[in-house]
Amino acid sequence: MSKMSLINLIEILAILVGAFSGFIEARSKKMDVVGVFTVAFITAFGGGTLRDILLDKRPLFWVEHQEYAILIFVLSLIAAPLIRTLKKIVSENLIVIADALGLGLFSIAGVSEAQAAGMPIFIASMMGVVTGIFGGVLRDIVCNEIPMVLRDGRPYAICSFIGCWVYLLLQKTGAPPDVALWSSALLIFLLRIVSWRRDIYLGE
Amino acid sequence: MSKMSLINLIEILAILVGAFSGFIEARSKKMDVVGVFTVAFITAFGGGTLRDILLDKRPLFWVEHQEYAILIFVLSLIAAPLIRTLKKIVSENLIVIADALGLGLFSIAGVSEAQAAGMPIFIASMMGVVTGIFGGVLRDIVCNEIPMVLRDGRPYAICSFIGCWVYLLLQKTGAPPDVALWSSALLIFLLRIVSWRRDIYLGE
Amino acid sequence: MSKMSLINLIEILAILVGAFSGFIEARSKKMDVVGVFTVAFITAFGGGTLRDILLDKRPLFWVEHQEYAILIFVLSLIAAPLIRTLKKIVSENLIVIADALGLGLFSIAGVSEAQAAGMPIFIASMMGVVTGIFGGVLRDIVCNEIPMVLRDGRPYAICSFIGCWVYLLLQKTGAPPDVALWSSALLIFLLRIVSWRRDIYLGE
Repeated sequence: MSKMSLINLIEILAILVGAFSGFIEARSKKMDVVGVFTVAFITAFGGGTLRDILLDKRPLFWVEHQEYAILIFVLSLIAAPLIRTLKKIVSENLIVIADALGLGLFSIAGVSEAQAAGMPIFIASMMGVVTGIFGGVLRDIVCNEIPMVLRDGRPYAICSFIGCWVYLLLQKTGAPPDVALWSSALLIFLLRIVSWRRDIYLGE
Repeated sequence: MSKMSLINLIEILAILVGAFSGFIEARSKKMDVVGVFTVAFITAFGGGTLRDILLDKRPLFWVEHQEYAILIFVLSLIAAPLIRTLKKIVSENLIVIADALGLGLFSIAGVSEAQAAGMPIFIASMMGVVTGIFGGVLRDIVCNEIPMVLRDGRPYAICSFIGCWVYLLLQKTGAPPDVALWSSALLIFLLRIVSWRRDIYLGE
Repeated sequence: MSKMSLINLIEILAILVGAFSGFIEARSKKMDVVGVFTVAFITAFGGGTLRDILLDKRPLFWVEHQEYAILIFVLSLIAAPLIRTLKKIVSENLIVIADALGLGLFSIAGVSEAQAAGMPIFIASMMGVVTGIFGGVLRDIVCNEIPMVLRDGRPYAICSFIGCWVYLLLQKTGAPPDVALWSSALLIFLLRIVSWRRDIYLGE
């Protein structure tokens, strides 16, 4: 598989996982089909959209790739049977793995976009974390919950933050862009998976 | 009455209806005058403002027309007696009709702005719906409610969505711009009124 | 002390007070360190960021001054012991005074930015108020509360609004920019302190 199609595959997977978590939360709040689509869309694209608004970058990701928006729209129409089916055939492990892949990929995409836009280094790392986690934050706000990622004490944003700094440091040391990108995205993925498997909490 | 003043009249009516629904929700949450103004303003202008931020279009509608902001400000100062008086002399029917007019007008204005900004077709239709409904979504978020339009199962966003697509299709078929605009705004209005009169719900 | 360093001192003080109120609310919601940082950041910079997005102004304040973001980050790591210590040595009076200083400074900074961006006069006054109060509004939304400033009936946004208009009127009458800026920021500060000391509520 070529590198481009691998990135695309992970990207689609990450968007689908985001949308899927939106489906579940919207359904648990008894939302109708409009709510299901809106929440899924915000979960999948909210982080990147907020980053692009802060950076003043246009066109937005989902404007350039309207096929992703259409995909979520179509899935929203069959969200209820879809969730039932997926819950049977997809294990929780698989969801966590896909979500961790998305966290890694989106975080590093975010930090590299921010750097390309000339952001100072600490701000760039924050933009990476925002891209990785703010879809879920906005999903929880629309669903009238305190955002899970801000209160559950699980290493999630922290994994993204560490990976973004590793990416920035690798760049400073002159590592090839590709190596920096993939190794730090992989690191975020591994940090997230390991801390989840070991049930690590951040203490007070 | 000339066409221009007719549009203006509908526009003012739609903004007033938005502001009025903001007044009612803010008062029911025991907000003070600052809250009443803020919520009314967000309800009236939130959808169009979000659209313009996503499209990166400036100046914003309410910056170009500060008279509308001033109008809402003045009304906020007398919101409590105003609501009491209006509830006596204005029937619920009239409010639903004015709101449906606003939904039609704002949706089509939104989709046509998005098209003018070069958005792809599905995104343009989404921008129309955002313009039509997101004032109410933001109102409910500020008032700490799950947004009504996302969960009550009533055809509202759907009416806007259908009308936006009819507008886009009429344009593709080369209909005169005026005809496309007015007939699709009218369609949204009628869909909303009919589904409300017939008490239609969207099933699971 | 030179004028520049005085402004900087007030600015830092105002940001710290904003962050501190974020710390307290995030901790009271049992948020983890990620939540504490996010909420503190949003409280300190949310108002100015919203204003800059509405005005389409970049770079954002905290992008130009990443040292402030870093400062909040470091403080977040020690938020729990920090709050305990500060509660012992800092009286509530001092917090209200610092917050009132921040309200005055940020409001006038907001209205003057908006004027520089060519906003009409009423909109400019609104931008001043947004800059002064929206950090707290966004903090409360993320923490799943109805924003305090919109419902507690205390003169807060009103102080900002009056001061912004005094600033705009002083400018029209040809007062020196410095005098206009400082006297109206001082007025907001005094209005806030006096109304707080006298326990004034805005009636229905």
